[in-house]
Amino acid sequence: MDITLCCSHTAIEPWLDGLRAALPQARISAWHSGAPQADYAVVWAPPQQFLDEQPGLKALFNIGAGVDALLKLRLPPQALVVRLDDAGMAVQMAEYVCQAVIRHFRAFDQCEADMRAGRWVARRPLERSAFAVGVMGLGVLGERVARSLAQFEFPVNGWSRSPKAIDGIRAFSGPEGLHDFLAASRVLVNLLPLTPETENILNRDTLARLQSGGYLVNVARGAHLVEDDLLALLESGHLSGATLDVFRTEPLPVGHPFWNHPRITLTPHTSARTLLGESIAQMAGKIVALKRGEAIAGVVDPARGY
Amino acid sequence: MDITLCCSHTAIEPWLDGLRAALPQARISAWHSGAPQADYAVVWAPPQQFLDEQPGLKALFNIGAGVDALLKLRLPPQALVVRLDDAGMAVQMAEYVCQAVIRHFRAFDQCEADMRAGRWVARRPLERSAFAVGVMGLGVLGERVARSLAQFEFPVNGWSRSPKAIDGIRAFSGPEGLHDFLAASRVLVNLLPLTPETENILNRDTLARLQSGGYLVNVARGAHLVEDDLLALLESGHLSGATLDVFRTEPLPVGHPFWNHPRITLTPHTSARTLLGESIAQMAGKIVALKRGEAIAGVVDPARGY
Repeated sequence: MDITLCCSHTAIEPWLDGLRAALPQARISAWHSGAPQADYAVVWAPPQQFLDEQPGLKALFNIGAGVDALLKLRLPPQALVVRLDDAGMAVQMAEYVCQAVIRHFRAFDQCEADMRAGRWVARRPLERSAFAVGVMGLGVLGERVARSLAQFEFPVNGWSRSPKAIDGIRAFSGPEGLHDFLAASRVLVNLLPLTPETENILNRDTLARLQSGGYLVNVARGAHLVEDDLLALLESGHLSGATLDVFRTEPLPVGHPFWNHPRITLTPHTSARTLLGESIAQMAGKIVALKRGEAIAGVVDPARGY
Repeated sequence: MDITLCCSHTAIEPWLDGLRAALPQARISAWHSGAPQADYAVVWAPPQQFLDEQPGLKALFNIGAGVDALLKLRLPPQALVVRLDDAGMAVQMAEYVCQAVIRHFRAFDQCEADMRAGRWVARRPLERSAFAVGVMGLGVLGERVARSLAQFEFPVNGWSRSPKAIDGIRAFSGPEGLHDFLAASRVLVNLLPLTPETENILNRDTLARLQSGGYLVNVARGAHLVEDDLLALLESGHLSGATLDVFRTEPLPVGHPFWNHPRITLTPHTSARTLLGESIAQMAGKIVALKRGEAIAGVVDPARGY
């Protein structure tokens, strides 16, 4: 069995070492142009040339949960595309989102500014029952985030492409459920996969349907959000703020209006990192299962886009 | 049945209205010197004179979970002292502590400073397995906080006066367990009641036993902490920071070294507010139960101090 690694923007040695330790029988090497044909590939942002030169791949393992960039390439038609599921990312998403939502709910930013200015001021708390949080996308990550939020007794709404029932979460689904979902939510947390259907889904029309004082947390992809529409709704006062981890262009370009916006909290695409150990264990397990002809989780449906 | 209210620093009308609605048969009034004897009292920081003039009280209901100040007064010897248990405070404590712990774990303060300065920098994350959180005090509030932290997959240690078993929490107890508890913890969350045994329990000796890079979250009482000892351990670098909601003197005095300390986050004693509706429902239910001769939760043992 031959495994090739082709990962841009990534230190490749730890992945090579980890996979070799996990699969001692396999031949594992870093790809270079002209390298022999491999059975499986571990990839992150590979060039088209890599895919063109490896037509016999049985499966491509993506180092991450989002495969939107990978699916824009021409892939070997028979190759399965496999994304990481959880692998330590769900808990990171839960802590990122809960931190952002609690910080907004409790007005800790204002509190910190008060205290830095030497003002001992108790601010009037919001009503928990009027602070419904809507989670878009109820895959492995979204479901974990929704459950974590519900644990803090916020009313939690969930919206997914196909209907899903999760204890304690008010479920909405499909295009026909989107407006009701938004109208029932004050905070919107985006964990959708990026597909042609979901690109630009966070726009003036949808965001304006959130309850007054609405707040956005985007931890999925920058291309979900029409950035100017967010700025306009912050300006109009309908939205009170946003916490953003992802952007249409990353790193966020110099001079972008999000930099230093007083009501936008930014993080540099770090809401959930790929964890080496967990990811390698998951990929190695799936490669062994595929060799045995077993079904595996995380296989992407290219038509659906995730 | 006569109920009297004696609450300093508190708008009393909503409590009068709420209790009258909940207990329409009772005579309920705000106390004034010379007022007739009442059966039950609802109090917050009452003056000694109130207690001296109401020797026949059967029970005193404290508007809050901490009764340390009340127990310093001379109380009618037969009167039960009843504290609020939970009444909407546990979830607030859980969100306050989880927010502070996640913020420290994920270095969101530094991240915010980076982004404000226009620097797109991904910081190396800490290892979750090396980020054990120790919760001191495992009453209604402490247990809820410990469970919430465990949900984020932090290793969680708990320390209580008497042994307690909580699923997923490594339990320590008693004076003999304190040093092991501290040595096993990197973050310390204090939710102890304030008693003569726990006053000054957060001092140079105990805080120095935390793992290197230790962090303190104090949401109990200011008198638990020897403030100069915290400052010295931050100065030495053994502790990396603190989030403090309570102080020996509140409001925090002008010129206090905690103001503007770069590694201390301050909030003005707002970690868990008394919620009017929940508190009135709980007190009214307990008054009815006491009248019927039934046992109630939250009765303070004056010898123990909580």
